[in-house]
Amino acid sequence: MPQSPATTQYRLDPAREQAILEAIRELLTEVGYDRMSIDEVARRARASKATIYRRWSGKPDMVAAALHGMMIDHPPLPDTGTLRGDLIGAMNAFCRVYERKQPIVLSLLAAIRSDPSLGRVLHEHVLESGVTDATAVFQRAVARGDLTAAPNVGAVVEVGKALLWHRLLLSGEPLDEAWVIHIVDDILRPLLGIHH
Amino acid sequence: MPQSPATTQYRLDPAREQAILEAIRELLTEVGYDRMSIDEVARRARASKATIYRRWSGKPDMVAAALHGMMIDHPPLPDTGTLRGDLIGAMNAFCRVYERKQPIVLSLLAAIRSDPSLGRVLHEHVLESGVTDATAVFQRAVARGDLTAAPNVGAVVEVGKALLWHRLLLSGEPLDEAWVIHIVDDILRPLLGIHH
Repeated sequence: MPQSPATTQYRLDPAREQAILEAIRELLTEVGYDRMSIDEVARRARASKATIYRRWSGKPDMVAAALHGMMIDHPPLPDTGTLRGDLIGAMNAFCRVYERKQPIVLSLLAAIRSDPSLGRVLHEHVLESGVTDATAVFQRAVARGDLTAAPNVGAVVEVGKALLWHRLLLSGEPLDEAWVIHIVDDILRPLLGIHH
Repeated sequence: MPQSPATTQYRLDPAREQAILEAIRELLTEVGYDRMSIDEVARRARASKATIYRRWSGKPDMVAAALHGMMIDHPPLPDTGTLRGDLIGAMNAFCRVYERKQPIVLSLLAAIRSDPSLGRVLHEHVLESGVTDATAVFQRAVARGDLTAAPNVGAVVEVGKALLWHRLLLSGEPLDEAWVIHIVDDILRPLLGIHH
């Protein structure tokens, strides 16, 4: 049974850590997960392998950190004053994040298939940031009275992520404003119990 | 603007057509979309290239037909007497179909990225079969009084498909009964307006 690697307590200088994560992202896009070597990550980031091994437990953990860094690297989600506006704003922001992540995730799909533990690690690390953002949106909606109770945030985020990836990887169609409005009005708001 | 190829009127003997579609599925899995040649499809299926070109307008159309054949190749969906039972039965059936399709779809993802028209053709051909199955489930539910009105079938199918692919390609986790029940109870039934 593969285990999710525990993140160690060891912390790096933030600039150093960013350089390493950027090297990981570059190599995933250029050569893919299987051929990405820690040696080459260290060389590009001008870091020692010992430093990398102290900070992350292995390649799955490193890749999860690199993707997590991209997930949280977006402008603050807009507070528009309505739940519908906030949902559209949030989906638009994630569209841009997911477009940037697409080449890396595409490079990981074959590796996830041969090592399901990689998929689980990515899922756990990446899910959390979406839940944090969505929780803020729903707390504002409850405070305004747009929602009568806090929804099942995990389920809503799961649907939003699945729809984004499906559109981006499989449909070949753009993550444009018309699609975002369709998702918010035909799926996310009904899922939240808003049927008007 | 790439156009979706129109299916010609030309029909083949069903056994001959099945042999060609099976050769397409084999080659997609073995060598991928870009390296699949019509010559090799014809050789494996003992068909002439002229026959293939009369039946399908090109590789995207052939691949869509091969995937469509897999989508509709499942046992009849169970009529369990409740909407929840029917949804669980339908999701279980599609889990098995999607597991069989996974290697082929994985082989197509890079090609979809470089040729978005391929994604659109696949989407159009494959979506329809899911909508037909789902419509039957919802008609029974309306007739029984489990639903007060026919739902937005396209939106429900879109969510189900997106969740299946997300689980299969990205999460690395199995399409098992516990997951199906979570999807039905936490996402599909709330989306249908059932919040109890």
